[in-house]
Amino acid sequence: MPEADIETIVDNMVESDLRGIDSHGVGMLPRYDGLRGDGALNMTPDVRVVNDFGAVALIDADHGLGHVAGTRAMQLACDKAEQFGVGTVTARGSNHFGAAGVYATMAVERGLIGLCTTGTTQRSVLPTFGKEPRFSTNPIAFAAPAKRNDPFSLDMATSTVAVGKLNIARRAGKELPLGWAHDADGHPTTDPNVALNAVPKRLSPLGGSRELGSHKGYGLAVMVDILSSVLSGSFIGGYNLKSGDREQFINVGHFCLALNPAAFRGEGVFEEELDDLIDMLHGTDPVDPAQQVLVAGDPEHRERAIRMESGIPMTETLFNEVRQVAEACGAPFILGNDAS
Amino acid sequence: MPEADIETIVDNMVESDLRGIDSHGVGMLPRYDGLRGDGALNMTPDVRVVNDFGAVALIDADHGLGHVAGTRAMQLACDKAEQFGVGTVTARGSNHFGAAGVYATMAVERGLIGLCTTGTTQRSVLPTFGKEPRFSTNPIAFAAPAKRNDPFSLDMATSTVAVGKLNIARRAGKELPLGWAHDADGHPTTDPNVALNAVPKRLSPLGGSRELGSHKGYGLAVMVDILSSVLSGSFIGGYNLKSGDREQFINVGHFCLALNPAAFRGEGVFEEELDDLIDMLHGTDPVDPAQQVLVAGDPEHRERAIRMESGIPMTETLFNEVRQVAEACGAPFILGNDAS
Repeated sequence: MPEADIETIVDNMVESDLRGIDSHGVGMLPRYDGLRGDGALNMTPDVRVVNDFGAVALIDADHGLGHVAGTRAMQLACDKAEQFGVGTVTARGSNHFGAAGVYATMAVERGLIGLCTTGTTQRSVLPTFGKEPRFSTNPIAFAAPAKRNDPFSLDMATSTVAVGKLNIARRAGKELPLGWAHDADGHPTTDPNVALNAVPKRLSPLGGSRELGSHKGYGLAVMVDILSSVLSGSFIGGYNLKSGDREQFINVGHFCLALNPAAFRGEGVFEEELDDLIDMLHGTDPVDPAQQVLVAGDPEHRERAIRMESGIPMTETLFNEVRQVAEACGAPFILGNDAS
Repeated sequence: MPEADIETIVDNMVESDLRGIDSHGVGMLPRYDGLRGDGALNMTPDVRVVNDFGAVALIDADHGLGHVAGTRAMQLACDKAEQFGVGTVTARGSNHFGAAGVYATMAVERGLIGLCTTGTTQRSVLPTFGKEPRFSTNPIAFAAPAKRNDPFSLDMATSTVAVGKLNIARRAGKELPLGWAHDADGHPTTDPNVALNAVPKRLSPLGGSRELGSHKGYGLAVMVDILSSVLSGSFIGGYNLKSGDREQFINVGHFCLALNPAAFRGEGVFEEELDDLIDMLHGTDPVDPAQQVLVAGDPEHRERAIRMESGIPMTETLFNEVRQVAEACGAPFILGNDAS
């Protein structure tokens, strides 16, 4: 890969790990290497703007890893937001790009509000009333700058939970809460083995059931695919809807939007009033005094501070997987021997 | 009120009723009249653009009914989207504006994608882990144009349900599903009377409980207030956060965003591929053959077709309430005598 691409990808993966989003950091390396081996990843992509109109643009990711196109898209959206007050850039022909929240935060680092959504590489979430999954965890990330407080930083799947949580319950020998997942016939199940054995897996949209509003989680997931996949010209959950098939490249789409609060409110006013809102939320009387009310981003900011001090923990298994990837491709293995 | 304002407000209220969103149509008239009586509504507002920068603008609603500022904001966002590919307009100092979905659809009528969110006039939804409500049902509406199909049209509260559903359960003598509402101490309750007697009411954010993802519904609700209220300079759930008080005017904020799909994809391509996505979703095998998979907007489009034929049904109670409003203010009562 070109040096600059490596730097972008590593920065984003490390940032994800620092926040405690272990599922989207170095843990993805074996899977990325698998895509490379399958010829499903262009290692020297020509990422370029194919359409530029006023405050919007469309980027072609040329089937490289998504981090490069995602970063380019958000930075260009920020450039446009500085010039026009708002900027929106989509990317097509991309791939897995790590944690959506990392991109939303890029806007905050430039004093802007960031919104980032992405399509996905598979089908794992059911539409309400449906028996077959049609899209995946279609995340929404939104970040906004405060002054005294850490930024507001929401990074959420539009499914009730991700697959990782089913595995945690299975290993712990626990039942799943009703509303997380379904069996192969689309009926709700509380058995983690039944949920994990369904091929493909069938997660619930946020809400969990129609009665508790799963049609809203489903609607948000489709909104994410409209913005990320349809507006860019990419596949939906890894499928080309014209042919109904998967292809050599997964063709993921991303959507990045940046807003300049100063263009609406003048310098610094937004950040101050966001502080008031964050303070008000933190000051809410809790039901249980031992569990204070949090604001989106609090757990990640806390984890980031800890890991900046003590490093990013890796399981023995992951440590060895990464070593194997390095050895197999002749890359120097530069991690220390102390897996924690 | 000025003639033009009346026309805008009535159009939006009737459109809401046509879609079957009875809670946001003519049923609001008695409440609007109450606001007028309380001096909480400016009947001759000077709605004006106070800030215009590139593809964004800020509108001051001058404390009139929200329909006027909301319509102006979305139409201006559309003008800007035609010029720059994307446009974003917020409104401050506004009031209740009816159904958010009506504004998102204005963009679709101009061939654009529309996103509309609004702050609210009260506090009725709990943050996750919280005992006191801090915001209300903070809705998100998103609409996008297709070609063969009706537009995709999502219009959702970020709470699990609205207060209306608690009343329906109470009248039917039914228990509430766990995850809809809380008692005055913030504990989940299944008793509709307990939920309705809590002052103020304490609804759950979408997800219903932490285990089922209520922190996501909570996060989305705060995102809505950041975009609608903080980015415009309005109150949060009817409260001035600086003073902690309510004031004479409710000071609601709205957020309107329009995207021009042609600026990303060229003419007509987006609409065609959205059709493919909608068809794929409609074609999903259902769990129960009697309940097909729907796409956001389907129930409203069906209801609209019915009501365009047979009219908008009103309960005897509402019919009389509207008559009383008309009589009390000396307006001619022009509805027929046949309440259905």
